[in-house]
Amino acid sequence: MAQRSQSPDAIVVGAGIIGLSVAWQAARRGLAVTMLEREEAGRGTSHVAAGMLAPVAEAEFGEAGRHLLELGLRSADMWPAFAAELEAAAGVEVGLMRTGTLVVARDEDEARELDRQAAFRDSLGLATSRLRPSEAREREPALAPTIRLALEASEDHSVDPRRVLAALRRACLEAGVHLRERTPVARLQLDAAGRRLAGVALQGPDGNERLLAAPRVIIAAGAWSGRLNGVPTAAGVPVRPVKGQILRLRDPAGPGLLGRVVRFAGGYLVPRTDGRYVLGATVEERGFELRPAVGGVYRLLRDAHEVLPGVSELEIEELCVGLRPGTPDNVPVIGRGSPEGLIWATGHYRNGILLAPLTAALVVDMLAREGPVDPLLPACSPMRFTAAGARPGAIHPVAAQAGPS
Amino acid sequence: MAQRSQSPDAIVVGAGIIGLSVAWQAARRGLAVTMLEREEAGRGTSHVAAGMLAPVAEAEFGEAGRHLLELGLRSADMWPAFAAELEAAAGVEVGLMRTGTLVVARDEDEARELDRQAAFRDSLGLATSRLRPSEAREREPALAPTIRLALEASEDHSVDPRRVLAALRRACLEAGVHLRERTPVARLQLDAAGRRLAGVALQGPDGNERLLAAPRVIIAAGAWSGRLNGVPTAAGVPVRPVKGQILRLRDPAGPGLLGRVVRFAGGYLVPRTDGRYVLGATVEERGFELRPAVGGVYRLLRDAHEVLPGVSELEIEELCVGLRPGTPDNVPVIGRGSPEGLIWATGHYRNGILLAPLTAALVVDMLAREGPVDPLLPACSPMRFTAAGARPGAIHPVAAQAGPS
Repeated sequence: MAQRSQSPDAIVVGAGIIGLSVAWQAARRGLAVTMLEREEAGRGTSHVAAGMLAPVAEAEFGEAGRHLLELGLRSADMWPAFAAELEAAAGVEVGLMRTGTLVVARDEDEARELDRQAAFRDSLGLATSRLRPSEAREREPALAPTIRLALEASEDHSVDPRRVLAALRRACLEAGVHLRERTPVARLQLDAAGRRLAGVALQGPDGNERLLAAPRVIIAAGAWSGRLNGVPTAAGVPVRPVKGQILRLRDPAGPGLLGRVVRFAGGYLVPRTDGRYVLGATVEERGFELRPAVGGVYRLLRDAHEVLPGVSELEIEELCVGLRPGTPDNVPVIGRGSPEGLIWATGHYRNGILLAPLTAALVVDMLAREGPVDPLLPACSPMRFTAAGARPGAIHPVAAQAGPS
Repeated sequence: MAQRSQSPDAIVVGAGIIGLSVAWQAARRGLAVTMLEREEAGRGTSHVAAGMLAPVAEAEFGEAGRHLLELGLRSADMWPAFAAELEAAAGVEVGLMRTGTLVVARDEDEARELDRQAAFRDSLGLATSRLRPSEAREREPALAPTIRLALEASEDHSVDPRRVLAALRRACLEAGVHLRERTPVARLQLDAAGRRLAGVALQGPDGNERLLAAPRVIIAAGAWSGRLNGVPTAAGVPVRPVKGQILRLRDPAGPGLLGRVVRFAGGYLVPRTDGRYVLGATVEERGFELRPAVGGVYRLLRDAHEVLPGVSELEIEELCVGLRPGTPDNVPVIGRGSPEGLIWATGHYRNGILLAPLTAALVVDMLAREGPVDPLLPACSPMRFTAAGARPGAIHPVAAQAGPS
């Protein structure tokens, strides 16, 4: 705690799932970390997330899809140990459910597409099973009789993000992270030479800005990462908000309606252990709009009824909106930026919960300047969107340099 | 205010639209009124109500329907003056919109039924107009092109219940009503002889009950009216909760999507003056359940989309549940009960907002023992459900006596 009166080794901007994970792991490695959150820790996009750990079900065609799959598989492998350490550190359970995922097709068109998706996964060596409708309904009897085909991804699990966030907050504090909530960053501050980061400027109660100095600043501000003042225009990353609406449901009869995550064209239903469910999610380009809207909620309810008629009896506990941090190629932005001292850990789009353990490990390695360059980092480079390295998804040698730049 | 240290002339139990209207009118007539509300004034069922003043659109077949129509037409006539007085007394506007109502049919079956309804209204001498789809869409261009027929009830208006409730609360306080919120009634208290009401017992902070004495107690506790302790079993009224779910919507583009109330099989959309809308309502027998549920919300959204596709862009501000006080014949319970001193003003089912001015006038006449017996009162008699007077909707001579019983 004596660290607090001195400059921290690193400042983390944003206390969502990524910022909290980075701060916790960095503090466990002995770094003095200050975390700045403009509102309340763990109450933004991460708080709305469904918590699927589903790299197999989400696998997509193309080069960016392949990068995301590799990131996702590695991070999914890390989740059980990450969850166990977190539970031990925080003394709370994080709701990891290892019950797998069913992807279902409701009609012939969807069934043909699902077949194509199954073949694609076969070609990648990903373990999935095609299930006939009767087999799917043996596993999940609440599925509609009209289901035509299902794909089981038995290694795609889920976690309860709200429990994870509460645990991370506690674990951060236990590990000595200095968490400053309701503390917006006024701007990033360069040193006198204008070449490297001096720290961040905070707005004082007197209206004047004060420097909080640190040699490293990690931007983990999600959809708001692109709005930080003080990032040189050419060094910014094109993160945009992608609106997602979800409904949080509760079965008054308790758990049992659904044991597995069920995904369908247009959405998913994720069970929690206590009879609660998350029904999500729309994908909408609406800027920073945070209000639930009729159209999206209607389509989610309609689709859920088609797939699982029993949802009709569930209570609606919440309508929520989250703003995913989208990037042009949907691959996150993890790596050293410019000016020197700046590290990006943002742009996780729909994969923030899944990719949190891996992102934290990658960033902590950067902070410690340890180990060889991770082969996945070039695809995540902050430089890949700039004119110099503008082939999305390609390997960028500039960004692949590991040492201090 | 000196009245407060003495016993009031009347106690009103329940500060919803009915209780507030009764208390306000009674206080204006010079009575010392204490109003007891177990939670907060105007935050129960009335707070969820859509506020349609629509006796013509809601006209129903049968004898009880005829009684309700008469009550509704009389109260609708009273609304403009009631609103004006209330606005003058409280200094706030209550959102009375005199733009009429369209009842729409979406398919041939609904069109045939709407034709039958139109003929029924013609037979009662109620002014409505049949509109062709093109005529309906001239009036409301946002209506779906698939509308088959519409019926216009140009005298069926609406009011904003939340504004009315806020105004009534203020008007009550201005008129000297002693409003005691968070004050549940422990029981009705009889006098020593057990023949007439002595007042109500309240739970004191020490856990002991204390008598609040008054010669008259008006029960305006809505769906909870049947749960009051101390009403002799034979003298109780069979009021039950009927769950209604509604959505409160807001057009980010401001007002203009809809000018009139639009009703359809299964629901309605009520515009406010400021670009807000109420989409309601389910009618469900689920006891005192107060949670929004998936099935009802889904059906409302689906139907609204069919009738008015533009709802898709509206924001959802609230999901609300109200418990309407239903009676076996859907006619309210207004009149003297047993023991002597007890007056019922409850059971308004879906018509509480509409019937508030008339109910207040009827109850105040009873308190003042003024005027001839209103010809509508027998149909509302609290005695009509008991063995002695068990022909629902019929005229009950016992209950028609006007003098002190």
